[in-house]
Amino acid sequence: MLERKKLDRVLIVGGTHGNEFTGVFLIKKFEQFPHLIRRSSFEAQTLLGNPQAFGASVRYIDQDLNRSFGKQSLQGNVFNYEEQRSKEIAQQFSIAGETPADVIVDLHSTTANMGVTLILDTLDSFRLQLAAYLSSIDPSIKVYYSGNSGRNQDSLRSLSRFGIGIEIGVVPQGVLVAEAFLKTESLVYSILDYLEEYNGKKCPSFSNQLILYRYIETIDYPRNECSEIQAMVHPQLQFRDYKALHPGDPIFLRFDGTEIFYKGTSVVYPVFINEAAYYEKGIAMCITHKEHRKIEVALS
Amino acid sequence: MLERKKLDRVLIVGGTHGNEFTGVFLIKKFEQFPHLIRRSSFEAQTLLGNPQAFGASVRYIDQDLNRSFGKQSLQGNVFNYEEQRSKEIAQQFSIAGETPADVIVDLHSTTANMGVTLILDTLDSFRLQLAAYLSSIDPSIKVYYSGNSGRNQDSLRSLSRFGIGIEIGVVPQGVLVAEAFLKTESLVYSILDYLEEYNGKKCPSFSNQLILYRYIETIDYPRNECSEIQAMVHPQLQFRDYKALHPGDPIFLRFDGTEIFYKGTSVVYPVFINEAAYYEKGIAMCITHKEHRKIEVALS
Repeated sequence: MLERKKLDRVLIVGGTHGNEFTGVFLIKKFEQFPHLIRRSSFEAQTLLGNPQAFGASVRYIDQDLNRSFGKQSLQGNVFNYEEQRSKEIAQQFSIAGETPADVIVDLHSTTANMGVTLILDTLDSFRLQLAAYLSSIDPSIKVYYSGNSGRNQDSLRSLSRFGIGIEIGVVPQGVLVAEAFLKTESLVYSILDYLEEYNGKKCPSFSNQLILYRYIETIDYPRNECSEIQAMVHPQLQFRDYKALHPGDPIFLRFDGTEIFYKGTSVVYPVFINEAAYYEKGIAMCITHKEHRKIEVALS
Repeated sequence: MLERKKLDRVLIVGGTHGNEFTGVFLIKKFEQFPHLIRRSSFEAQTLLGNPQAFGASVRYIDQDLNRSFGKQSLQGNVFNYEEQRSKEIAQQFSIAGETPADVIVDLHSTTANMGVTLILDTLDSFRLQLAAYLSSIDPSIKVYYSGNSGRNQDSLRSLSRFGIGIEIGVVPQGVLVAEAFLKTESLVYSILDYLEEYNGKKCPSFSNQLILYRYIETIDYPRNECSEIQAMVHPQLQFRDYKALHPGDPIFLRFDGTEIFYKGTSVVYPVFINEAAYYEKGIAMCITHKEHRKIEVALS
């Protein structure tokens, strides 16, 4: 077991996507009432990720900020707002930055029915234990592992050693929904409390069983040669994120009323079903596999 | 009783707001399968209201198209896309246009929990009877009268003698939700069937009782001197469109956890609660009064 390295700085980010208001207004709250996120063993910082996009109530101005932190992007020239913004953020908070964050907690929302979801981009024991802890204090929390989706390389949270994403849904873009705000706020405090215990070399008790939804691939909407959508997410699949989808189950409904069925060969668990921001990315849903993992409970 | 004037042309519009996909994709469907809206006694036309805004997946490019049909706007100079677009649409479909529409049915969606809502901007016997008919074949349909909100002067549907708006929610912006699509589609067919009967001088039977929600005023989010929102729609009010709000009921929750209560002196019925597009308009909800009206059943 490796010795724990103390976590000196934790960065909480909201509004990496400007029209995801839950995170934006939580950051404003934490900046107004900093004692809420203050803990004795580390410095908690806050960041409004994309203030121009929030001002315009859009996801981004020129390109998706949360895909702008790859090495190539950060080393390349600056042609637009998010390219400039990602460099500013990296200079401040990356491992080699001015106030490097050991942990970044990035707050998002989704139009998919994903409830409270913790996103891990790397399955190290630190994040697995944190996930197991959080899901044992609230079993309704789902844990999504972004696998080979690219998020462990290009997302804002990938700047830190331990990046964690939070999603909450259903939340429409451009709307502040109190219930989503309160649930996310509560989860942030649980994470901060855990990190405080971690720094104190304590080990909060939690189940050693963790259910993980591992990203496998995406499925696009059926489209014609002009990329126009030819079918809707099937009413029987809509809002059923994290539920089993069996081979032969309906997944899309064409405008003429005919159905399209899932052609996979095994049971899968779709997430990000009908996420507004993913239409332009060619994603109608992300397919995951459900895994039961045994977590080493002793903190490493 | 006045003699009925035959309705020669009906215009169905979707995508007056580019990120309200329900209407956009219904128009695409009707254009692909025109027999679905064909009726013997009138010509049914279709229109994608704001194609550039749909292409960009935003409500509008420069200004809200559905506030751009006032006399002054239509007679003024063209400075932006929607000013140009409103003139094009008026030249084609207004009473003095090339193919004037007697009825315009404009399809919208909302992030508020308004279910299927019929919007009337004028309480003439034609529209009241149509509303009574539709709500008697489906009692879950709500009827909203926009009163002195301005919509009977500046909306796209105000170009015609008989304009009707349809809202459906909860639907996030930029998302095509099959259930909303199917419900709106079904309502469009019911309207067309009614108009066919009307032209045939038949009188479909319906209850002479109609419940109407009359627009009274708007309530904005609490804001600071910089116009920044200082409170959320209260969790006990969120999604409770068309439900009674009593004096003293909580309506907002401040970020510090304190509550703001409704200060009115009588029971009201809020709608468009937390509609994404209304943040910039300074509207957290529209307050309505609930009215029971007796409708003259004989068609006039």
